[in-house]
Amino acid sequence: MRDLDREETYLVDRTGLALELRDLVGTGPVPGEAYPGPHAALGYGEGQFAALLSGLPDWGEEGTLFLLEGGYDLGEAAGMALLAETGRARVVRVGFRPGVEVHIPPSPLAPYRYLRFLLLATGREEVLRSVDEALLEERRRLGPEVPVEENPAKFLAYTLLERLPLFYSPLFRPLEGAVQTLFARVAKSLSLTPPPSALEFFLVGLEARHEQGDPLAAVLLGPGEEAALAKEILESRVDALAEVPATGANRLAQVMALWYRMAWTAYYLALLYGVDPGDHGLLERLREVT
Amino acid sequence: MRDLDREETYLVDRTGLALELRDLVGTGPVPGEAYPGPHAALGYGEGQFAALLSGLPDWGEEGTLFLLEGGYDLGEAAGMALLAETGRARVVRVGFRPGVEVHIPPSPLAPYRYLRFLLLATGREEVLRSVDEALLEERRRLGPEVPVEENPAKFLAYTLLERLPLFYSPLFRPLEGAVQTLFARVAKSLSLTPPPSALEFFLVGLEARHEQGDPLAAVLLGPGEEAALAKEILESRVDALAEVPATGANRLAQVMALWYRMAWTAYYLALLYGVDPGDHGLLERLREVT
Repeated sequence: MRDLDREETYLVDRTGLALELRDLVGTGPVPGEAYPGPHAALGYGEGQFAALLSGLPDWGEEGTLFLLEGGYDLGEAAGMALLAETGRARVVRVGFRPGVEVHIPPSPLAPYRYLRFLLLATGREEVLRSVDEALLEERRRLGPEVPVEENPAKFLAYTLLERLPLFYSPLFRPLEGAVQTLFARVAKSLSLTPPPSALEFFLVGLEARHEQGDPLAAVLLGPGEEAALAKEILESRVDALAEVPATGANRLAQVMALWYRMAWTAYYLALLYGVDPGDHGLLERLREVT
Repeated sequence: MRDLDREETYLVDRTGLALELRDLVGTGPVPGEAYPGPHAALGYGEGQFAALLSGLPDWGEEGTLFLLEGGYDLGEAAGMALLAETGRARVVRVGFRPGVEVHIPPSPLAPYRYLRFLLLATGREEVLRSVDEALLEERRRLGPEVPVEENPAKFLAYTLLERLPLFYSPLFRPLEGAVQTLFARVAKSLSLTPPPSALEFFLVGLEARHEQGDPLAAVLLGPGEEAALAKEILESRVDALAEVPATGANRLAQVMALWYRMAWTAYYLALLYGVDPGDHGLLERLREVT
């Protein structure tokens, strides 16, 4: 097994994703002006999670609509821009499509940058500060220089190795898909997310195939009564169970701290599998055709 | 391997789910009165999918709010009812909680009944007719009496046996979770759904573990440009790929026809695994505590 505390393990990281992860806080574009309210945000691809997490409505008849064009929209974002521009709302296109007003290049870590821009553009600097504090707090324990005994992301990566992760976050359910995306894109790995009725799924969905298939590793992201119930149900049904506590002054900071922890975990899992955690060349082509 | 064209295979169906499946169309409560508009619907548990599919807003300040109490809400539905009752909207509680105005007992097939009630209560009889027509059309080919060569649900169940299904429906993404729930509850089986950026997930998420784990079977539900792209990407990455065409006069009918086809498929998969497709006793306890 590869050793996350040895330098040669990091040679597969050819694009230097570790540096981007370490220096993430404070990166990304800042608004150059004040945008009239009320604000709305509609997100696609890499911008979708930030739009949901911002809590802004996804459409507005007036004020400013932030259109987060993070790819994979098959022309829908452009259509929505046209539609919005016929109304009284100002449309601010953010992302990596041609002609955007605010540019955010493709990256598995772009969700942080979309969220940061949205918080600044809507005058929520306080909330951004709490997010950044939570991420900086996490960062101290998660980097390559912190040995596995003191590094929860390294530790979790070892737990997930050779297992099929199952993510559950009653705190903010869309986090599950965001983490599934991180694991696909960074660790090149398959993972599972439950349907809306998650507890029912845990209770009855693991019978027929469980014994023959991949060993499952449940990852409970954040607190909640549902997480406690899920733990009770899953303990006897999965091969391993990990609870990831949420740190942060508010829900938004907690969710982003969990997301950041899982980004590091996906990074370490890539190293353990011996695959480059950086972006796959195929993704560029997919972004072009969609 | 068990044979779906032999009677003894059906002995594990102790609760007679085949009859409930066959006779589903036209079952469930009908509204006893006219409900003032505008209408809104907020759904939990078994009612969640119908609320989304109805296209109704999930909250309204006036008119009628249909609160679909299909379980697993941990008191949230009751809280929402109290909140709504302080406003000008009338609240109609539907489901299986104590004191509901319209009763729909727990069943894996309840989503149809919640949807049917909503369509009738909001004056959309025409749409319901198109849904029912699509389901009746499906039913002719899906029952136990139709042999496997002419029965697409039986055929698909054989394809999914001993594989890990991966559901994708660009037509209506919440269908994926609804089908994942059917497979858990009826077939007692694990299945996968992709995150919002599904094509990216298909392209890069199947590398690290794919060769060692369960063989994957992708199931593309319904039409669309994304479904065609997904097929192209997945063909070389999964063990089996099935395309399920959508029949029906409109999107709602198409989605429900796909859901019904997958309910039959989950039923047959349970029989192939030799498990009772009926409800697990544990679920009743879970509904009580949540």
